[in-house]
Amino acid sequence: MKKSFLFLCISVLSICAFAQNPIPDSFESEVQTIIEAAMTNETGWNRLTFMGDTFGPRFSGSENLENSIDWIVEEMKKDGFDRVWTQPVKVPYWVRGEESVTLNAPIKRNLPMLGLGGSIGTPKEGITGEVLVVKNFEELEERSEEIAGKIVLFNAEFTTYGQTVAYRVNGASEASKYGAIASLIASVTPYSMQTPHTGVMRYQDGIDKIPHAAITVEDALLLQRFADRGEEIEITLKMEAETFPDADSRNVMAEIRGSEFPDEIIVLGGHIDSWDVGTGMMDDGGGCVGAWEALRLIKESGLTPKRTIRVVLWTNEENGLAGANEYRRWVEEDENSLDNHILAMESDAGVFDPIGFGFSGSDEAFDILTEIGSHLEEIESGEVSKGGGGADIGPLMRGGVPGMGLRVNGEKYFWYHHTDADTIDKLNIEDFNECVATMAAFAYGVADLNIKLPR
Amino acid sequence: MKKSFLFLCISVLSICAFAQNPIPDSFESEVQTIIEAAMTNETGWNRLTFMGDTFGPRFSGSENLENSIDWIVEEMKKDGFDRVWTQPVKVPYWVRGEESVTLNAPIKRNLPMLGLGGSIGTPKEGITGEVLVVKNFEELEERSEEIAGKIVLFNAEFTTYGQTVAYRVNGASEASKYGAIASLIASVTPYSMQTPHTGVMRYQDGIDKIPHAAITVEDALLLQRFADRGEEIEITLKMEAETFPDADSRNVMAEIRGSEFPDEIIVLGGHIDSWDVGTGMMDDGGGCVGAWEALRLIKESGLTPKRTIRVVLWTNEENGLAGANEYRRWVEEDENSLDNHILAMESDAGVFDPIGFGFSGSDEAFDILTEIGSHLEEIESGEVSKGGGGADIGPLMRGGVPGMGLRVNGEKYFWYHHTDADTIDKLNIEDFNECVATMAAFAYGVADLNIKLPR
Repeated sequence: MKKSFLFLCISVLSICAFAQNPIPDSFESEVQTIIEAAMTNETGWNRLTFMGDTFGPRFSGSENLENSIDWIVEEMKKDGFDRVWTQPVKVPYWVRGEESVTLNAPIKRNLPMLGLGGSIGTPKEGITGEVLVVKNFEELEERSEEIAGKIVLFNAEFTTYGQTVAYRVNGASEASKYGAIASLIASVTPYSMQTPHTGVMRYQDGIDKIPHAAITVEDALLLQRFADRGEEIEITLKMEAETFPDADSRNVMAEIRGSEFPDEIIVLGGHIDSWDVGTGMMDDGGGCVGAWEALRLIKESGLTPKRTIRVVLWTNEENGLAGANEYRRWVEEDENSLDNHILAMESDAGVFDPIGFGFSGSDEAFDILTEIGSHLEEIESGEVSKGGGGADIGPLMRGGVPGMGLRVNGEKYFWYHHTDADTIDKLNIEDFNECVATMAAFAYGVADLNIKLPR
Repeated sequence: MKKSFLFLCISVLSICAFAQNPIPDSFESEVQTIIEAAMTNETGWNRLTFMGDTFGPRFSGSENLENSIDWIVEEMKKDGFDRVWTQPVKVPYWVRGEESVTLNAPIKRNLPMLGLGGSIGTPKEGITGEVLVVKNFEELEERSEEIAGKIVLFNAEFTTYGQTVAYRVNGASEASKYGAIASLIASVTPYSMQTPHTGVMRYQDGIDKIPHAAITVEDALLLQRFADRGEEIEITLKMEAETFPDADSRNVMAEIRGSEFPDEIIVLGGHIDSWDVGTGMMDDGGGCVGAWEALRLIKESGLTPKRTIRVVLWTNEENGLAGANEYRRWVEEDENSLDNHILAMESDAGVFDPIGFGFSGSDEAFDILTEIGSHLEEIESGEVSKGGGGADIGPLMRGGVPGMGLRVNGEKYFWYHHTDADTIDKLNIEDFNECVATMAAFAYGVADLNIKLPR
């Protein structure tokens, strides 16, 4: 009798809990508060601009990066978050140095270029050799007997970033297998104004390392035409590139503690490092300052989420992911919070006009996030689609944390990606503020749910 | 009696002539021949590509320009025109040399730049000075008392080329009037990927000459922001630029002699010189090779126009118009053919998807050209609009010759204009061939009219 009464009570409570809307009734007005605060504010935009103008690009191992981090920490402290701290991370330290590609024949001209991150350098006098132009790995293999002693140019047409980047990442080792003395790629981009693009490359174990650099799409097409006409092409490649012992960097973190479940954490952020060109405003200054600004607006608006919202600006995404890996290690081993990481959110596709988020997690969570997104109709940025995440939240996601990446109308993203043209003028304050509102609304929405977002 | 009979006869003949359609009935099928020949041909496109690849940019005074001209003359002779010849022209000879802009404060960075054509150089150690940023000539005047001893940066927003180019052409003298020691401009363009644009500048008489260069839009905006924040900006400008005694160049000419009225001439062309960057494929290699190809196709198609069609590739449009002026002088003083120049046609807006021609001349001629254009419906390039011409046909037009300029969908024209990105990949063979067909159809149409195109 006693037992069955208890059972009845539990059943009724369960049904009540189940029937309860996971999203509090107050959310609609809170989203309005967030949108209005974001869209009428210049603080985040001005901070992003100031950071780029003042510190320049933020490459792993550089003073610029650490100066930027120092400044961010100071500013975050002014914002009065519950906690602001950094986490030491050892990062790869590659330095480009002076570099050039000179076309010696059939015409003489300097070609705009960028060495690829992680490449070895050349001897001081450079490497001079005949160029063999191939369109893809298949042609490389077909012509494998012609390659020894030559410089291979991969003139791969841009299809998708995911496909075409293979030539940047693996081109050197693939060419070296057949005896190439250096390798070049057409920059990985759908559009060029004689614009070289850098990015990370890797050497395969057991294969001789050869220098690897990007020239522009225009010049790759030019060399292709010379080759098609049967003209002999000779270049001299000079690169001072060098890898030094790992350097000290930091992840930057700030949080608002949850009022009811402080141990349950919604994490959002981007990567604070950039390549050593441009000012990394799109990739990924905007994602970092946008996430930070989202947290600041939640606080400034007087919203008090039930769960903790934490911003993390990961270091060294571009050429190592050391920051993301160290965060995952720390979460697991030091904070013991992996199971309490409710959701991980990342913005690393540029703070262009936002569409919503791409989400990887359970269907129940997807439905709740979709309902949260429905409150963002005013700025048309609430669409949640299936599948998504990001490089920096990858280690958390592999640990079982649901993850999602901000989706934007970024049709020009790869025009500027890893170039000198990744500067603040490619973005605008309205799009940026909409990204801030979107990140803030989803982060707060999940942090303040009546239930824990189901895994 | 005899007299009045003669009068009657003349009147009747006049009425008959008036009633006769000025466009021969054969024109419709001839236009079809021209379009088909143009659209199935690669000769012109391959010549344009080869010229850019092989000789590079074609700046007045350079070996490249004269080598290109030598090659064109050889090729034209192979085409079997009735006459191929060149006309000696003395052209300005400005050499850029090494050049740089270094930002010393508030941050240190090299800024991409291009000296402006005709500028004086700096002393070997460069000119170092504080930068005063102004948005326009009005602000320059308002702040005239702050300018002495400083470097003025005109950070003018691009509105139209015609308006904004004033800062490139006149900026140095306007700044020098108030004691500036050098001047910079934001590159004249609506779009930038850290792309500097060169172009001609002029010094006003009686004003001290100061060096004048273009930086990128991105960096002009950066310096504007530094100035707006009250930060002191210092740069060092180094330019080896030098003007040498006038050099030897040539206009290139080829023609098909008219079968009935060989002394009546339809002239069409573009300018064979370019700036000393990129390969000048858009400005104006495409216009030149397109006009030449139009003439070749008329000949190859076996069409025999009543009047002479002449292609002229004018030299030195960019920084002097010496070729256009010499052609006008020669026409007037040597060939004595100014009154027999029936129509002058120019292509210098890029061989993008053609719309038609902009025409300056009589209403009667406009109506006839409109009817000629109506036969180009298939390739949608026959629209004739009122007003138009071109820099190289300007001297002829001022002498009373009706003139018209090819109009194209060139919304990206000023993205590439006078930059390293003016290369063949910005064009495509289909658009080029449509331009060729359009030029050929209008040139042949006017050359073969039953009447002389009325002035």
